[in-house]
Amino acid sequence: MPDAEGHPSTGEMDLRTVLGALADPLRYGVVAALLREGEGAARTCASFNLPVSKSTLTHHFRVLRESGLIRQVDRGNSRAATLRREDLDQRFPGLLDLVRADS
Amino acid sequence: MPDAEGHPSTGEMDLRTVLGALADPLRYGVVAALLREGEGAARTCASFNLPVSKSTLTHHFRVLRESGLIRQVDRGNSRAATLRREDLDQRFPGLLDLVRADS
Repeated sequence: MPDAEGHPSTGEMDLRTVLGALADPLRYGVVAALLREGEGAARTCASFNLPVSKSTLTHHFRVLRESGLIRQVDRGNSRAATLRREDLDQRFPGLLDLVRADS
Repeated sequence: MPDAEGHPSTGEMDLRTVLGALADPLRYGVVAALLREGEGAARTCASFNLPVSKSTLTHHFRVLRESGLIRQVDRGNSRAATLRREDLDQRFPGLLDLVRADS
């Protein structure tokens, strides 16, 4: 079962759900940006400067979180997102390499 | 430029478009089924027995074709679909392995 924040465990990650999360250009951009950062880098949602409303931003980050692509952690009044590299490399070997090669 | 049938060349294939094509359960099922067939196997759209109308079926196969996942060839009054394995392995190494591991 996903945790209280909606993060699935590695075994719960579903390939089709992850592909659907990546198919959106804004969400893909967030993952590609996190991938370019150093391992374990955490960024706030606002730092991506996405041209969408706050509720749409919340929606996109929920899709990313519930697919397992990112982990979101509370930081007082903002949330920071990290890419779940290790989990993704374990569950879907080669997936992040495809995104990396495409960036 | 894609050919007259809408097939992109290998270099024209776009990762996000391919991921979006795979994110739909019916389309994913078609790709997974073709992947289980022998190399070069060709199947008619009808052979997949998808529970959708003919126009929806046409739509899904167009999305698959225009993303580059399948090649469709005319066979008199039906069309047969083949998976573009070699092209996909060249353009997106490891992608089909992920679908194979998931099936």
